[in-house]
Amino acid sequence: MHPTKSAFEELVVHLRRVQTLESAADLLGWDEQVNLPELGAAQRGEQLAALAEVIHGVSSAPRTGELIAVLSGAGAEQTDDMRAVLAQARRDYERATRLPVHFVREKATQASHGYHAWAAARAAGDFGKYAPVLEKNIDLARREAAYLGRSDAPYDHFLDYNDPGMTASAVSRLFTELKRDLLPLMRSIVAAAGPAQPSPLKGLTEEAQKSFLSDVTARIGFDYRRGRIDVSLHPFCSGSGDDVRMTTRFKKDEPLDALFSAIHEAGHGIYEQGLPASRWRGTALGMHAGMAVHESQSRLWENQVARSRGFWRFFEPRLRALFPGGAAEVGSEDLYRAINAVAATPIRVESDEVTYNLHIILRFELEQRLFSGDLAVGGLPAAWRELARELLGLEISSDREGVLQDVHWSGGAFGYFPSYCLGNMIASQLWYRALSQRPALEEDFARGDFSWLLQWLRENVHAQGRRWDALTLVKRVTGEDLSPQPLVRYLRERYGSLYLG
Amino acid sequence: MHPTKSAFEELVVHLRRVQTLESAADLLGWDEQVNLPELGAAQRGEQLAALAEVIHGVSSAPRTGELIAVLSGAGAEQTDDMRAVLAQARRDYERATRLPVHFVREKATQASHGYHAWAAARAAGDFGKYAPVLEKNIDLARREAAYLGRSDAPYDHFLDYNDPGMTASAVSRLFTELKRDLLPLMRSIVAAAGPAQPSPLKGLTEEAQKSFLSDVTARIGFDYRRGRIDVSLHPFCSGSGDDVRMTTRFKKDEPLDALFSAIHEAGHGIYEQGLPASRWRGTALGMHAGMAVHESQSRLWENQVARSRGFWRFFEPRLRALFPGGAAEVGSEDLYRAINAVAATPIRVESDEVTYNLHIILRFELEQRLFSGDLAVGGLPAAWRELARELLGLEISSDREGVLQDVHWSGGAFGYFPSYCLGNMIASQLWYRALSQRPALEEDFARGDFSWLLQWLRENVHAQGRRWDALTLVKRVTGEDLSPQPLVRYLRERYGSLYLG
Repeated sequence: MHPTKSAFEELVVHLRRVQTLESAADLLGWDEQVNLPELGAAQRGEQLAALAEVIHGVSSAPRTGELIAVLSGAGAEQTDDMRAVLAQARRDYERATRLPVHFVREKATQASHGYHAWAAARAAGDFGKYAPVLEKNIDLARREAAYLGRSDAPYDHFLDYNDPGMTASAVSRLFTELKRDLLPLMRSIVAAAGPAQPSPLKGLTEEAQKSFLSDVTARIGFDYRRGRIDVSLHPFCSGSGDDVRMTTRFKKDEPLDALFSAIHEAGHGIYEQGLPASRWRGTALGMHAGMAVHESQSRLWENQVARSRGFWRFFEPRLRALFPGGAAEVGSEDLYRAINAVAATPIRVESDEVTYNLHIILRFELEQRLFSGDLAVGGLPAAWRELARELLGLEISSDREGVLQDVHWSGGAFGYFPSYCLGNMIASQLWYRALSQRPALEEDFARGDFSWLLQWLRENVHAQGRRWDALTLVKRVTGEDLSPQPLVRYLRERYGSLYLG
Repeated sequence: MHPTKSAFEELVVHLRRVQTLESAADLLGWDEQVNLPELGAAQRGEQLAALAEVIHGVSSAPRTGELIAVLSGAGAEQTDDMRAVLAQARRDYERATRLPVHFVREKATQASHGYHAWAAARAAGDFGKYAPVLEKNIDLARREAAYLGRSDAPYDHFLDYNDPGMTASAVSRLFTELKRDLLPLMRSIVAAAGPAQPSPLKGLTEEAQKSFLSDVTARIGFDYRRGRIDVSLHPFCSGSGDDVRMTTRFKKDEPLDALFSAIHEAGHGIYEQGLPASRWRGTALGMHAGMAVHESQSRLWENQVARSRGFWRFFEPRLRALFPGGAAEVGSEDLYRAINAVAATPIRVESDEVTYNLHIILRFELEQRLFSGDLAVGGLPAAWRELARELLGLEISSDREGVLQDVHWSGGAFGYFPSYCLGNMIASQLWYRALSQRPALEEDFARGDFSWLLQWLRENVHAQGRRWDALTLVKRVTGEDLSPQPLVRYLRERYGSLYLG
């Protein structure tokens, strides 16, 4: 074998081994949330810490550095595949070798401590208990960026960590335009929709809910021979390749909650199942393209697809069949409105897709100011309230409904929130591109046929792995730069037609 | 800290780390049998292989050898605890370092190949397909023994691997005596019991069965805050410390099957939960004393306890409450006979506790002859039939009901079967010792109180870990050498009184 090719194959084997060990740790993490006995947490923590240390050792093995050097050398002939794999391998290797072990340990300890401090502060509604954690986490974040050569722009470092190539200025440009167009639209829809209503569908057993959502998620494309669904407190999706695991939770009087959670997680799962893992697992070519693209896949199925009229033409009779008397007291239009209810709420995870993006813009603006030094941690609660008033028209009465609501910052996850909104933008832009190629998509859905859309996503997004960053991927697939306009158009079409007549 | 003490503490930390990684692999093994999606097997195999390699690397790290050498040196002052820990650490380190990596890999590959070849041969009832696997496995077993310095007595090596200190001559002496006394007793009980009868308890839902067996296993002492029960094809128990996982399986018309499987596995689980893990996990002091003692714990709860009249005085009304009409058509004595049914059957795992031990003696005799060279693999089916006739009075019509029935040899697990029967002997000997100290044990059970027995086992067996080997442990707890006589006495008392009147 040519020496470049042989070094490349050795690197691929090595990266697959790292991913294999990481996936073992992932399974322990899944199990922790789904199955762990009440008193098993300390032991599980010990297992995960031991695995993390092993994985760090394997990831930072000097041989990896040698292979990367050989493949980056002047004499190495590179294909496109090799270039993509090498870029990500270099990125991961630098992260593994530049962050000192003592720092990684300090960050892990602080993340665990931060989680518990946050949970206690949230329960007590006492931001003062949480502030020192946030200060320490921001300090750690700055140090991490410095170790990785980004002390000039620590917030950019975190955006780029979640979404390769993303910068604060790019996000800022997109969010500013979105805010300009979404704010007036959101205000008129929220005003027209009126106050939130309870779900019209009551009293569906967990068994019936599970049977329905399994049917839905299997039909849209989640392969249950290569994955499963279980119950956890907070829905999530983990795993990869031939073992993708998603969770949901059941509320007897809100069957739409479990259903849409499951469709969302199935969107993540379908993406993971569509990555070219058998050849490329662990490398850039077998890896998702970042959190924004991941989120676009969950949102597209959850929103563009599963909140459409076509989708419900097929599934409404199936859902009604689970109720004695077919839930005849609930009219079709009431059901469709319940599925697409809009009302501003202080809590991000309870919000609808019209207001959701403003929750993200709020967090992005605060994160920028925290990292630029414009805003001190002590000023966060007031700044949060001010933005909630400006963006959502809400008066936040308690920090539990404000700055204490999200877990992310407690574990040092900065620069993560933007990917939720970027994912919504990408989902809309992909959606209109797909629709332009197959205008009859909703008619497919009305027949329970999701195969054209699935195949289109498989080819255009899933099969590409992390060959390109999010912005490049969107440009290649849709022919346009990423823009908030498709999202605004989608929200106007769906919710304008429903609420603004 | 004194240098010996400091080296010892370093060794303890190291051994705990090895066990922690092993327990992560265990969890993946549990998950494979309980949760794995249909197409996830290859990926799981890759994860387990990667973890096995990591664990081998950590176990055989030169620093371990240095610590063992320091602690074994002339100047080292050893306590009893240190001696026990050191002996096991040396044993494990020698195994990790003396078996070459290529051999470990060859054995693992062959175990996987052997399993599939066995499954295919069993399905086809074709021993010819299985014979080459067995020949290869015996060859590998001899090579393993040679690497570990036991080429003189490869079978002893495997007995000792499963039960430290055990030898073929010790087992042979015990089994010969057992056979002499058990054979005539078994023959008269089987003759008196007549042909096997179907279970009198029909049609119990899985939910009702699960609720009943959860109640039973919790009352005898399995702590569900530190463990759980799930469903798998073959019942087993895995995990350790604060996360012990057992499984059972449900058959609608045989509720006693799931129940007794669960009690058996709960016995294993109660033992694991009782080991002094927080201080000693991974060392001899926090480790079970070998497979025979492990089996004694499962059998004691399953048989001596859960087949007793006292036990059923408490649980019979609870079981009846699950049936409409209280299963009034089944009399109490019929129920008790169903619980203690006896009938010779060709299949070990379906056999009752009177005939069970003869299934083990059959396998022990064949294993001895295979390793001594007296018996070639080709002669196994005929030798099996002959022994089944002699020991169980059965004519084996197909190898599926003979030599092809067990999975053990397909993976190279030789010298394992004897621990099942040794476990039965130990259980009986422990039982009579406990009874001599508290004659009212069955009256405890009749009140649903198992705490005295549990506490007695906690102190005398569980808290001891692997401080002593099985023979020493039995001698210390009961004051007598291990003997088959308590088992014979127990079977005579329970089954003689039931069937021989």
